[in-house]
Amino acid sequence: MTSEASGGAADPGPLPQVDFRTEPAQYQHWRLACDGPVATLTMDVAEQGGLVPGYELKMNSYDLGVDIELYDAVQRLRFEHPGVRAVVLTSGKDKIFCAGANIRMLAGAPHPWKVNFCKFTNETRNGIEDATACSGQTYLAALNGTASGGGYELALACEHIMLVDDRSSAVSLPELPLLGVLPGTGGLTRVTDKRHVRRDLADYFATKAEGVGGKKAVAWRLVDEAVPRGQWAEIVAQRAQELAARSTRPAAAEGIGLTPLAKTRTSTEIRYRHVTATLDRDRGVADITVSGPDRGAPASMAGVHEQGAGFWTLAMTRELDDLILDLRTNELELGTWVLRTSGDADQVLGHDRLLLDHRDDWLASEILHYLKRTLKRLDVTSRSLLALIEPGSCFAGSLLELALAADRSFMLAGVFEETDPDAEPAAISIGPANLGPLPMGNGLTRLQTRFLGDPDGLAAAEKRAGDALDAAGAGRLGLVTFAPDDIDWDEEVRIAVEERASFSPDALTGLEANYRFAGPETLETKIFGRLTAWQNWIFYRPNASGPDGALRRYGTGQRADFDRKRV
Amino acid sequence: MTSEASGGAADPGPLPQVDFRTEPAQYQHWRLACDGPVATLTMDVAEQGGLVPGYELKMNSYDLGVDIELYDAVQRLRFEHPGVRAVVLTSGKDKIFCAGANIRMLAGAPHPWKVNFCKFTNETRNGIEDATACSGQTYLAALNGTASGGGYELALACEHIMLVDDRSSAVSLPELPLLGVLPGTGGLTRVTDKRHVRRDLADYFATKAEGVGGKKAVAWRLVDEAVPRGQWAEIVAQRAQELAARSTRPAAAEGIGLTPLAKTRTSTEIRYRHVTATLDRDRGVADITVSGPDRGAPASMAGVHEQGAGFWTLAMTRELDDLILDLRTNELELGTWVLRTSGDADQVLGHDRLLLDHRDDWLASEILHYLKRTLKRLDVTSRSLLALIEPGSCFAGSLLELALAADRSFMLAGVFEETDPDAEPAAISIGPANLGPLPMGNGLTRLQTRFLGDPDGLAAAEKRAGDALDAAGAGRLGLVTFAPDDIDWDEEVRIAVEERASFSPDALTGLEANYRFAGPETLETKIFGRLTAWQNWIFYRPNASGPDGALRRYGTGQRADFDRKRV
Repeated sequence: MTSEASGGAADPGPLPQVDFRTEPAQYQHWRLACDGPVATLTMDVAEQGGLVPGYELKMNSYDLGVDIELYDAVQRLRFEHPGVRAVVLTSGKDKIFCAGANIRMLAGAPHPWKVNFCKFTNETRNGIEDATACSGQTYLAALNGTASGGGYELALACEHIMLVDDRSSAVSLPELPLLGVLPGTGGLTRVTDKRHVRRDLADYFATKAEGVGGKKAVAWRLVDEAVPRGQWAEIVAQRAQELAARSTRPAAAEGIGLTPLAKTRTSTEIRYRHVTATLDRDRGVADITVSGPDRGAPASMAGVHEQGAGFWTLAMTRELDDLILDLRTNELELGTWVLRTSGDADQVLGHDRLLLDHRDDWLASEILHYLKRTLKRLDVTSRSLLALIEPGSCFAGSLLELALAADRSFMLAGVFEETDPDAEPAAISIGPANLGPLPMGNGLTRLQTRFLGDPDGLAAAEKRAGDALDAAGAGRLGLVTFAPDDIDWDEEVRIAVEERASFSPDALTGLEANYRFAGPETLETKIFGRLTAWQNWIFYRPNASGPDGALRRYGTGQRADFDRKRV
Repeated sequence: MTSEASGGAADPGPLPQVDFRTEPAQYQHWRLACDGPVATLTMDVAEQGGLVPGYELKMNSYDLGVDIELYDAVQRLRFEHPGVRAVVLTSGKDKIFCAGANIRMLAGAPHPWKVNFCKFTNETRNGIEDATACSGQTYLAALNGTASGGGYELALACEHIMLVDDRSSAVSLPELPLLGVLPGTGGLTRVTDKRHVRRDLADYFATKAEGVGGKKAVAWRLVDEAVPRGQWAEIVAQRAQELAARSTRPAAAEGIGLTPLAKTRTSTEIRYRHVTATLDRDRGVADITVSGPDRGAPASMAGVHEQGAGFWTLAMTRELDDLILDLRTNELELGTWVLRTSGDADQVLGHDRLLLDHRDDWLASEILHYLKRTLKRLDVTSRSLLALIEPGSCFAGSLLELALAADRSFMLAGVFEETDPDAEPAAISIGPANLGPLPMGNGLTRLQTRFLGDPDGLAAAEKRAGDALDAAGAGRLGLVTFAPDDIDWDEEVRIAVEERASFSPDALTGLEANYRFAGPETLETKIFGRLTAWQNWIFYRPNASGPDGALRRYGTGQRADFDRKRV
């Protein structure tokens, strides 16, 4: 069948294998400068630096490559520059802050690329809000020129938005009037639910391509202040100092280097130090194994600072983060991820304990928040997640979250009698890491989400924190889905994997997106749940992506030819 | 352009103009029987009674026509049978409760038809929950055979679900494994958020086409009890009596007849007694005018009971309800609805006051809840809503909700100097109807949603309740979007309407669906916001609706040929 019947566009040719690893010395599009407690992150996109041939990144428009650098910078600010308390996000161009996602790129990209791109963009913006909320690194959007579309959506992720007041600079969401799509990377949600722009004004704003500037933008709550160009530098610097002064971030802390991530990749395997994935294209499966620590936790946080990026929790999290992004972007047909762990549960719990006992240490806090964000990335990944809990595994504390994030889990009752009859049977352990510090996007722990509306079930599970639970016990407590024995294991697991591969990939995506976020809603779940779903639909419709649709016709001088039926 | 490129299906031929008016004597698919406090609503679908040719409604499967009768029955139970305190929903077939939405119908229907059908189905199910929650008419699903897909989703809308325990009857959500679509009419949301089925069990359940029955269905919370066939009738009757006993519904109340709705319809006009719409296909606009009461409210509720369906608030609501359904289903290309009112604001407020002062009267309560549901129907309508507030209008209290539901409102400052210089300038009034009794699906009033995150703005507006506010005052308080004078009026309104017609209809739908439901989320907003959006996307993708997709291939003996890329 034609995979991109109407939602596709001109054949963009083969897409590149994307590498998410970068570092400031390699940046093409951003400059990161730190000056005491204030960092400045300057967007200065290289027009010819697109990730894929076929478009120019004019007017500080961006593609995935630009966003990969931004993500890297936001991460490094938290780990390498702990003294930074405020981050000024601004543009290196005259008169334009950022024109948003590149339209030619969007028009030419196949549907999955668009969707993946938007998801990563959203995650990075949520990361900016997480840095502000959890890390005392407050982002300030210094819009020294017009911020359109995704450019304004980026500003919306910042705590404070300043717009130069020069009669021509404006903020705008021109996606609907110009392109026939939504401001779908958080724009609609943040305008109403974060900035509380009145809904009728928000409606007007999102249909007015030229946007709103000056005092009106302030009155409508679209920006926090409009500043004359003459006072711009001075007032931006002053605001940054004020935001920095509010932070409780330690003043004299020394950062740790996020050293290059060692990774080998073939067509059948991706291997890091603590994480490996084997890619089985016939079955449509990635078999992922996360290894526990290969040594005990340091005696104190001093040892963690010393180990830096080598400290197990941080190293494993970085590897898992990179693997998720790699598989999501580069391996679209591996629809099921099978999650295993391997190692010593006590050592996992020991590493957890060290971090949780020292959450007032900036590095411990950063590592936990990073693990939290990485697990959230797993939650919004459109792949079926199956956890296999076997002898030799270490699903305890932070690593138990992998099983709790899975759509289903299987835990072997007993051992594999033929291959390893003398093994210890698998056990899982709830630890303090499962009871609060690693919430999902809905604001609940994965345990709370699992036992939504079942407070007794939740209490019974939480009461067993610290115990090594065997398959029967874990099954009784509702912590695993199925607990087959050796005789049934292979068959049950095989059927689960094969069945998953036989279903409609689209329907699975929708199913999982609904089931994974039961309970309360937050900005995050609204963005990934509701807004994204509408955008996916709109992206796929001919009115946007068809040959006569608005995305494809933009810039041709021809108006889009819309099917006028309202659906 | 091809309007249904990939998401469409075999050309189903011209779709019928759908009439939503019916009454029990005309039912083909349901039987309604009342026995004191317990009513029984029996689904016994006529196989040959499909609304559109080309499919047979086997195994109690349903199409829009079946659902129109259900909606009518649910409404009549509340108005015509006030003594009913429990409603048993069951099937007239052996061994099958309901097989869900008819698959041939879905496979053959164009995309907008599928979407509209699902929306109406959802609204009716929410109405069942509303009857249980607000009206003391508690619904009991008596599944005397298998309930699949939409059949189980219907049961999920009931307060109590009983399943016959006979080793063959089950509840199931086979949409994903069999059809490649979602249980998209509330199924996924209610399973997790209402019944609190554990997410991994819910995942398993929704991938197992044959479903789950007996004790396991109870243990997993999918149903409330499994009852052996031998005791079935007795225990169902007993449960119905128990549910009835919990109700505070008046025992001896006499119902009022929902008399046939007088309506004339041409290709350019739909006219009822209090509501008219002119259909302007060139501009893509329906101009809707709601007239206020033509006489004062009765002195007491006795007068309302006497007027029955003739009482203005009820009559107007029924007309508006029918008009919304008619335009939504039959006039897909009228993308903008312009809302006007005409009449005496004091009389609107007088009618509101009478109802609100007597909310303990069952009829007053029913009328208010019906108005609430009808306004919610407007909120989830995928049309742009513009309110025009002109001299002679009566946007006060309950009718002010129309302006507050609109995406934008325009209020004339002053009068039309050329045509009616001596008119009273338009005024709007907040009344008690705006302060609580007519909440949106998000649980907030439309005023609260409007002033989300702006408690001062909300308080300032609410403080002016009872005052007639002119355009300047209403504008200052943020109750209207724009308040142009006579000189600018025509131009501003014309531009707003023309602009709306020039935009992508899909993007407008997505924009409005996001903006209209800011703030807290409920089952309702999750169903209409998140679940529906995913289902729309999935419906539109070739994996479901393409020639080789699962919906089209179902029953052919050929497996669907899926594009395996996960998006």
